[in-house]
Amino acid sequence: MIKNNRELIYEGVSSNYLEAETIICGIPFDGTVSFRPGTRFAPSAIRQVFDGIETYSPYLNSDLTDKKICDLGDIPISFGNTTKTLQTIEQEIASILDDNKKIISLGGEHLITYPIIKSYIKKYPSLNIIHFDAHADLRDTFMGETLSHATVMRRVYEQLSTGQIWQFGIRSGTKEEFIFGQDNTSLHPFSLDKITDVINQIGDAPVYISIDLDVLDPSIFPGTGTPEPGGNTFIELMDAMKKLTSLQIVGGDIVELTPNYDASGVSTIVACKVLRELLLLI
Amino acid sequence: MIKNNRELIYEGVSSNYLEAETIICGIPFDGTVSFRPGTRFAPSAIRQVFDGIETYSPYLNSDLTDKKICDLGDIPISFGNTTKTLQTIEQEIASILDDNKKIISLGGEHLITYPIIKSYIKKYPSLNIIHFDAHADLRDTFMGETLSHATVMRRVYEQLSTGQIWQFGIRSGTKEEFIFGQDNTSLHPFSLDKITDVINQIGDAPVYISIDLDVLDPSIFPGTGTPEPGGNTFIELMDAMKKLTSLQIVGGDIVELTPNYDASGVSTIVACKVLRELLLLI
Amino acid sequence: MIKNNRELIYEGVSSNYLEAETIICGIPFDGTVSFRPGTRFAPSAIRQVFDGIETYSPYLNSDLTDKKICDLGDIPISFGNTTKTLQTIEQEIASILDDNKKIISLGGEHLITYPIIKSYIKKYPSLNIIHFDAHADLRDTFMGETLSHATVMRRVYEQLSTGQIWQFGIRSGTKEEFIFGQDNTSLHPFSLDKITDVINQIGDAPVYISIDLDVLDPSIFPGTGTPEPGGNTFIELMDAMKKLTSLQIVGGDIVELTPNYDASGVSTIVACKVLRELLLLI
Amino acid sequence: MIKNNRELIYEGVSSNYLEAETIICGIPFDGTVSFRPGTRFAPSAIRQVFDGIETYSPYLNSDLTDKKICDLGDIPISFGNTTKTLQTIEQEIASILDDNKKIISLGGEHLITYPIIKSYIKKYPSLNIIHFDAHADLRDTFMGETLSHATVMRRVYEQLSTGQIWQFGIRSGTKEEFIFGQDNTSLHPFSLDKITDVINQIGDAPVYISIDLDVLDPSIFPGTGTPEPGGNTFIELMDAMKKLTSLQIVGGDIVELTPNYDASGVSTIVACKVLRELLLLI
Amino acid sequence: MIKNNRELIYEGVSSNYLEAETIICGIPFDGTVSFRPGTRFAPSAIRQVFDGIETYSPYLNSDLTDKKICDLGDIPISFGNTTKTLQTIEQEIASILDDNKKIISLGGEHLITYPIIKSYIKKYPSLNIIHFDAHADLRDTFMGETLSHATVMRRVYEQLSTGQIWQFGIRSGTKEEFIFGQDNTSLHPFSLDKITDVINQIGDAPVYISIDLDVLDPSIFPGTGTPEPGGNTFIELMDAMKKLTSLQIVGGDIVELTPNYDASGVSTIVACKVLRELLLLI
Amino acid sequence: MIKNNRELIYEGVSSNYLEAETIICGIPFDGTVSFRPGTRFAPSAIRQVFDGIETYSPYLNSDLTDKKICDLGDIPISFGNTTKTLQTIEQEIASILDDNKKIISLGGEHLITYPIIKSYIKKYPSLNIIHFDAHADLRDTFMGETLSHATVMRRVYEQLSTGQIWQFGIRSGTKEEFIFGQDNTSLHPFSLDKITDVINQIGDAPVYISIDLDVLDPSIFPGTGTPEPGGNTFIELMDAMKKLTSLQIVGGDIVELTPNYDASGVSTIVACKVLRELLLLI
Repeated sequence: MIKNNRELIYEGVSSNYLEAETIICGIPFDGTVSFRPGTRFAPSAIRQVFDGIETYSPYLNSDLTDKKICDLGDIPISFGNTTKTLQTIEQEIASILDDNKKIISLGGEHLITYPIIKSYIKKYPSLNIIHFDAHADLRDTFMGETLSHATVMRRVYEQLSTGQIWQFGIRSGTKEEFIFGQDNTSLHPFSLDKITDVINQIGDAPVYISIDLDVLDPSIFPGTGTPEPGGNTFIELMDAMKKLTSLQIVGGDIVELTPNYDASGVSTIVACKVLRELLLLI
Repeated sequence: MIKNNRELIYEGVSSNYLEAETIICGIPFDGTVSFRPGTRFAPSAIRQVFDGIETYSPYLNSDLTDKKICDLGDIPISFGNTTKTLQTIEQEIASILDDNKKIISLGGEHLITYPIIKSYIKKYPSLNIIHFDAHADLRDTFMGETLSHATVMRRVYEQLSTGQIWQFGIRSGTKEEFIFGQDNTSLHPFSLDKITDVINQIGDAPVYISIDLDVLDPSIFPGTGTPEPGGNTFIELMDAMKKLTSLQIVGGDIVELTPNYDASGVSTIVACKVLRELLLLI
Repeated sequence: MIKNNRELIYEGVSSNYLEAETIICGIPFDGTVSFRPGTRFAPSAIRQVFDGIETYSPYLNSDLTDKKICDLGDIPISFGNTTKTLQTIEQEIASILDDNKKIISLGGEHLITYPIIKSYIKKYPSLNIIHFDAHADLRDTFMGETLSHATVMRRVYEQLSTGQIWQFGIRSGTKEEFIFGQDNTSLHPFSLDKITDVINQIGDAPVYISIDLDVLDPSIFPGTGTPEPGGNTFIELMDAMKKLTSLQIVGGDIVELTPNYDASGVSTIVACKVLRELLLLI
Repeated sequence: MIKNNRELIYEGVSSNYLEAETIICGIPFDGTVSFRPGTRFAPSAIRQVFDGIETYSPYLNSDLTDKKICDLGDIPISFGNTTKTLQTIEQEIASILDDNKKIISLGGEHLITYPIIKSYIKKYPSLNIIHFDAHADLRDTFMGETLSHATVMRRVYEQLSTGQIWQFGIRSGTKEEFIFGQDNTSLHPFSLDKITDVINQIGDAPVYISIDLDVLDPSIFPGTGTPEPGGNTFIELMDAMKKLTSLQIVGGDIVELTPNYDASGVSTIVACKVLRELLLLI
Repeated sequence: MIKNNRELIYEGVSSNYLEAETIICGIPFDGTVSFRPGTRFAPSAIRQVFDGIETYSPYLNSDLTDKKICDLGDIPISFGNTTKTLQTIEQEIASILDDNKKIISLGGEHLITYPIIKSYIKKYPSLNIIHFDAHADLRDTFMGETLSHATVMRRVYEQLSTGQIWQFGIRSGTKEEFIFGQDNTSLHPFSLDKITDVINQIGDAPVYISIDLDVLDPSIFPGTGTPEPGGNTFIELMDAMKKLTSLQIVGGDIVELTPNYDASGVSTIVACKVLRELLLLI
Repeated sequence: MIKNNRELIYEGVSSNYLEAETIICGIPFDGTVSFRPGTRFAPSAIRQVFDGIETYSPYLNSDLTDKKICDLGDIPISFGNTTKTLQTIEQEIASILDDNKKIISLGGEHLITYPIIKSYIKKYPSLNIIHFDAHADLRDTFMGETLSHATVMRRVYEQLSTGQIWQFGIRSGTKEEFIFGQDNTSLHPFSLDKITDVINQIGDAPVYISIDLDVLDPSIFPGTGTPEPGGNTFIELMDAMKKLTSLQIVGGDIVELTPNYDASGVSTIVACKVLRELLLLI
């Protein structure tokens, strides 16, 4: 139980577990990454930089110091053992949800969303998932494996009962993924423009927000495993997130920052700003 | 004859020479580069990354696996001997054109376009050249030399009989180059907006597309010898290329990627995506 | 007196001190930087790259070779001694102003603007300051110090008599800074759009332009101490600068380039292009 | 069966499988790495650089062009699935041994030695293992896992029947590992000096040589996951390898090159030189 | 009082302040650095890597887990204000010495040794200082300043009453510094060989060990502000440190690691190993 | 005539041409480099760092301020035109020799030694050449070209009349080169130990010293085009150079620094120290 771990304290994130309403949880897992590994370094890199950014957001005119947030540190990873790691994630998330907290998870690779959602759906059967990503992640298998960063949304889709996946920013995939997305999820390629429509459709259902940071253009976010040109600007993402304020957000994740491919440090700063906005949205 | 070389096979590029309609040809020459050398590493870097990107383009809704493409490997370079290298390029290109193939050349520096065009004009006397670039490349001499990456379009211009050069994205040069461009080529500074007009003017004449990747803004394409801020976005280039589908494209080149100045690897990925679209256009 | 130093000569900057109308002055001071130091390397890096860029600006259709500019080299820095360094800057600037020159200073960190403005206000009591920056720099103290890159505009504000500070591009700060800016300076957050209005209000008062290059988005300008995503594009900054031609500009500075965080070299090139435009504006 | 794959051909490595006496096999697996991943990139990086180094060794006065060597490409990795990957390695190695070839494997992380040795011991029950490494790799478990780069020699030890492990260069580990090594393997800390003694003890038993390149000092080999200062120089390793010529070497591996931490490229060149000597030794 | 700060806990460093015999103290000051700044990042970088290295030293056959060590975090720095920073350091060190602790300080630049020694000499008037360094640091002034990383040993010398400075590894300086060293300190250029003689001369006097890591050759320690080729190997430094076990060591510092010039991460690992040995020596 | 260029002045190099006894000359040519280009950046990088190193050498106990040295700047390079460039070098060197100066040339690639020696031999027919290098450079042709960095000593050998080439540190080449060296030059592989013998044999003949910096081990000198492990330490090179004091040295060169592969900056510092010793030797 990571709840017994030492709580991490930094600028804007300083509540203890009991009083906190939102829990930050690091999940430094990158075991299925096929191209450029290193998202395992993201939670630590984000915390180090987060401590130095402003707690006040001029985008939302809101300040982290008005929130009750606790960082529980990292969920332990079994290096080389995917099955065991996914089980640990699922159990840890379930345990925190039992205490009626909202959770923001810091990946790690995108596959972590799968065990998280498995626990979330038990608590919120009508969960809606807003998914920002350059990739559809809708393959059935990838390089022979069913559990992969490239299949995660297909696996998540299979868990859904009455809920729905809404995908934005998708600009890379196989032809089959794009067709599957049109038939089974609400896949919006390239832009984030349709987000207003979606918000109306979701209404007051509980919402989980999964942000694969590679939805951003690699000009502003090069530090990721599979950068895809033609992405959204930071301002476009800020605008889209701002529109989510009316939703009932119950959790989310920020995945696929690879600090070891972030020579300038800008990608890590971007991840921190996105985290700040997400924490302020909840 | 590089046709006798071993054909390179990778994802989406797997035809043999005889059956192929389009030939990829590496030309790792950077002998006249004055600022930051290294385009010699581009063909190898592009092939390595190309093997990992999607063959399906959501921009053109088209897939490389439906094309017949063969990669003949690299044309041999005589290091330190520009004259001999240019002769080799001219001969190799002529030989492939004799077999009625279309050729996409991977630079290398922009000077390679000169011997390529010399061979092309013999086969297509009315050749039109669409030139994407940050620089006019219209100087008569550069640092005392007539054969240079900075004079290449002037040299190409001198080869034209009835054809025409159309230049887009130009945002750096001497005052004289801008004036020469206004008088003698169709020079469109900064944006790519005028491409629709040009397409109508070209009609069904044979077209060669020369893409100096520094036409892109250095935010998305830093890995080049002389980056120029104020350039076009990747989406703007995709939009412009999409409009070229109606033209009769007979060849092209992608030049000036310098992988050793591409710390994040994003520039090489961008080059691969541009190559994919160019291969799908033909 | 740096006037006795050897004058530096490079492409487009080749007048001697006596004949020159505009003086370039390096101020490699980064003593109060708290996050990523290294602006001390900026003047040297800028000069080295400036020597290779075009003297002709297609944005302003104007050429540096038509200007009389002299580079006096760097003002000497006392490492570890902020008070002495600021005094030296103030005296050197005053001495050049006495000779009726206009001065463009190359930082260094933003705090250098404070001693420069102290000398400028003695000569131009009604000085207006146009300030491009991602940060408001309006804190009263920062980490216990009153003299800091994060307090510089507050200190400058306290020096003003009848003049005015106009701030553009601001997108990061404490809540208090944004409120102070609304009440006391003309703080325009995020965009540069309001610059036309401001030009009319300034009229023919003398104007000093302070450009903290982090006003640009880190996609195009990563090489700076505290990069802030959501910034302005290079084209937006060019457009804004172009509109300043009607003003009576008497000096300016370009600060916060950190070449050691500029792996691709693009940030330094951007700084050079901004410097070229600024020199052409005067 | 990778034997059906396309054989890779480069300078000094150009035999086909049938005629070859020595087989090169890439194993780009780094699934259990806990610190800095990236050995997955090593086989590709080594081949690219190997093509450019001299085939003649002045250390051994011997030339690769006199050898019959074939490179079979990479064994396929199941990303995220350690068990399946180790099974594949074991089967592929067994299959090549059945054809009476000697095998040099290019890691990948050190755990690959475990399945390789499992197959080797079936063919050579009295196999001796000479192990160059900075780390003892003798833990029973590491971070809760029994299969790990840090436990590999313990697992190999458990497979041995009559053979023996000889360890050289060890300079990092737990107190328990050093004690286990003294009792159960022939662990020689720090230097390679004792290698002459060992050669006499081994006599004409079949020998497998496992070279974890981090045995070298990080001054000459920084590009590895867990660099340990105080290591051996390249010349010391060359001298030690030279002494092995009298042994009956039946296979070996070169592991733990991490090209993405090899900014200067020197580590990859070192790996290539060690590979050349190892190929010449067999 | 940093004693009230949160104590940092990591592998091998886990005592609380009261029970601890040795205190680790970060001093991230680099205000007088003239060449390549960044030692401010060293304490944080060292702690992060230290957490992952072995607690057992095969050099000393000793384990950190048998020691009582507490890390008090960093002494607060006033950026841009050298005088105030040095006063804070002096007071904080005095306060910990009052509690009869031994202190290992992590720089920061070498000037921090000056205020530390000022406090130490009050407690230990006959303090001897063993100084490992590439540079003599014996100038009277440097670039006009008396308080500088290049004058620190001159300032320390002026504080000595009956004690003595012993300098090893010195290989760069002005002619004057070498002469001053011969006359006033015990300056041993280049090698560490004379350390045995010195140990006998010191006897049981209290000893402070100041390790400027640039005493090491830049092949193994490139991550420092002013690297000097021709330095000592890591093994030579280990051997020299091993010989100090008989001395009565009362404190020490490790300075001049510049993590932002340590691309491979090896320099930071070296600093951690040196810190481990120093902690084990006390 | 570069003698008309502006003379460069920096720490320790401040004489004017007329009074100077030793001339420094930059030759930023890297046109025949086949692997990693960039020695063109070396003269500029060396000058920038040289300005900051100590003028006093503790190795030779000698100071640059006692010498009369003038830096004439760079010889102009014709990019892409090897023949013309080599002619320019030959003429410029001849012209300076006519004025009875000694010349230290800063490469650039090793081929520059060929035109330099052509001019030197006209003045000094019995010239002896001491050649430090990892590579024999004795090929007759390289990749089809006779003028190449890999053939330079063969070309130089063909120019010799009564003189002699003495080669040290050679550890890479074809079998043919090693045999040619044994028969025709005095090729000493690997170590520099035999230098004392050679000094006696040379006696008072005029000597030219060509230092390809890759003679040093890549642990201390990674910033070069073709790094070869197993090289000499900096201390070994210093010791060898020290022994040359009795010779009548009339010129020399320092080649093959590639600053763009020198991430840590250490290679450039090493080049500067070698340059300082060479200047002090003359």
